[in-house]
Amino acid sequence: MSQTPIIFYDIPSSLPGNAWSPNTWKTRYALSIKGLPYKTEWVEYPDIAALAKKIGAPPTSTKEDGSPSYTLPIINDPNTGKVISDSFLIAEYLDATYPDGNTLFPPGTKPLIRAFEAGVVGALEGVLMLQLVFSCYILNPSSEKYFRATREAVFGKKMEEFSPEGAKRDADVAKSKGDLTAVDSWLAKSGGKYVMGNTISYADGVLAGWLMWIKVTDGIWKDVATWHNGRWATYLTHLDSHATIN
Amino acid sequence: MSQTPIIFYDIPSSLPGNAWSPNTWKTRYALSIKGLPYKTEWVEYPDIAALAKKIGAPPTSTKEDGSPSYTLPIINDPNTGKVISDSFLIAEYLDATYPDGNTLFPPGTKPLIRAFEAGVVGALEGVLMLQLVFSCYILNPSSEKYFRATREAVFGKKMEEFSPEGAKRDADVAKSKGDLTAVDSWLAKSGGKYVMGNTISYADGVLAGWLMWIKVTDGIWKDVATWHNGRWATYLTHLDSHATIN
Repeated sequence: MSQTPIIFYDIPSSLPGNAWSPNTWKTRYALSIKGLPYKTEWVEYPDIAALAKKIGAPPTSTKEDGSPSYTLPIINDPNTGKVISDSFLIAEYLDATYPDGNTLFPPGTKPLIRAFEAGVVGALEGVLMLQLVFSCYILNPSSEKYFRATREAVFGKKMEEFSPEGAKRDADVAKSKGDLTAVDSWLAKSGGKYVMGNTISYADGVLAGWLMWIKVTDGIWKDVATWHNGRWATYLTHLDSHATIN
Repeated sequence: MSQTPIIFYDIPSSLPGNAWSPNTWKTRYALSIKGLPYKTEWVEYPDIAALAKKIGAPPTSTKEDGSPSYTLPIINDPNTGKVISDSFLIAEYLDATYPDGNTLFPPGTKPLIRAFEAGVVGALEGVLMLQLVFSCYILNPSSEKYFRATREAVFGKKMEEFSPEGAKRDADVAKSKGDLTAVDSWLAKSGGKYVMGNTISYADGVLAGWLMWIKVTDGIWKDVATWHNGRWATYLTHLDSHATIN
């Protein structure tokens, strides 16, 4: 491809390769599935709002106090001058702007892939709070401080109290294992290595993005990797070629 | 088409036209979307198990006491000799056996339509218990007695206590209105009159099936019909031509 690389803003960590966030992983997978050259720019949490305002990226939601909330992923496409926030909107933009090659949304599937993502996130509800804690452990100091303070303010308690080791954590993890049984049964209808059979799509960006978060933060991945006959670990390997960090 | 009509077993009611059950509505929509001739045979609840055993229809789940649970819809296809239980399996069978005309599952969409149905059912959680009560009011006596007894045994209380008028019911209904906001946002991505844009699919059988249950039992349809700018009422009219009861 002759495009100038798309600038992709992601949040760094202390991990080799930096990448960890599920929402930005979705965009990385989307860019790779589309076969588009991109270059990651790493932005610590406290610097996201200033960056977004500077490059004209819209907020993705509104905070409780009514002020705009700026989040990553954001892409800045020098080929079109467009700056887009929000992983789903980015995926839609990529399909619309670069119709060649793989299609992230086969015709008519946008509502279904939205529903699929809601189902995946819902199934991970048991481990989401736990994942926030594990994420703290791999963030760089300035991001960790910001991430911890904002999440603790929302939930009104210390991160380490979200899903403390013991009965509470065991129940949280068991809940997600149970809830993922539904997702496992959906994938059993795929008939191929991707969510949509042998057709790769944004549904894979979604599922692999959320799984990668669990894998790289490494708190309960050793458990999750064994669940449902190893489906989640095996599935991620099918997306290996799209997990390269450029 | 030259097929002999498929025999479709459904549960009657006191409503004009009889049909009311969401799970069997899904199959009626599926048969109609496929353009297949069918003939409904009406079976009261207490007679389902005997029918299933007689025609060789497998159970769809196992009861708490370990005995098999037989449910409708069931179809008996005289063209192939096949007898199938379970709305999703029936839809898969229809696509596989009758590949002409509309496709219920466009390639790769089975896992996504599974996820979509889980999302729709989840969004209706607030009104499900209420819908069970409304269903009692339109069932014929033998089915009502069976339906009421089995549901009350599962939940350990009288049907009328499931979602009594007042604060509890108001909260239940408000929950579903809130949860359906997500489904509304998914459909906003459709770009057409069906779930998958202008392509009809089994996702429509699912959504219309669940909505028809609410509509025909008529308890809170007057509210639901106004929610989300009338989306649910308008949507159902798009499926009107597939709601004929044969």
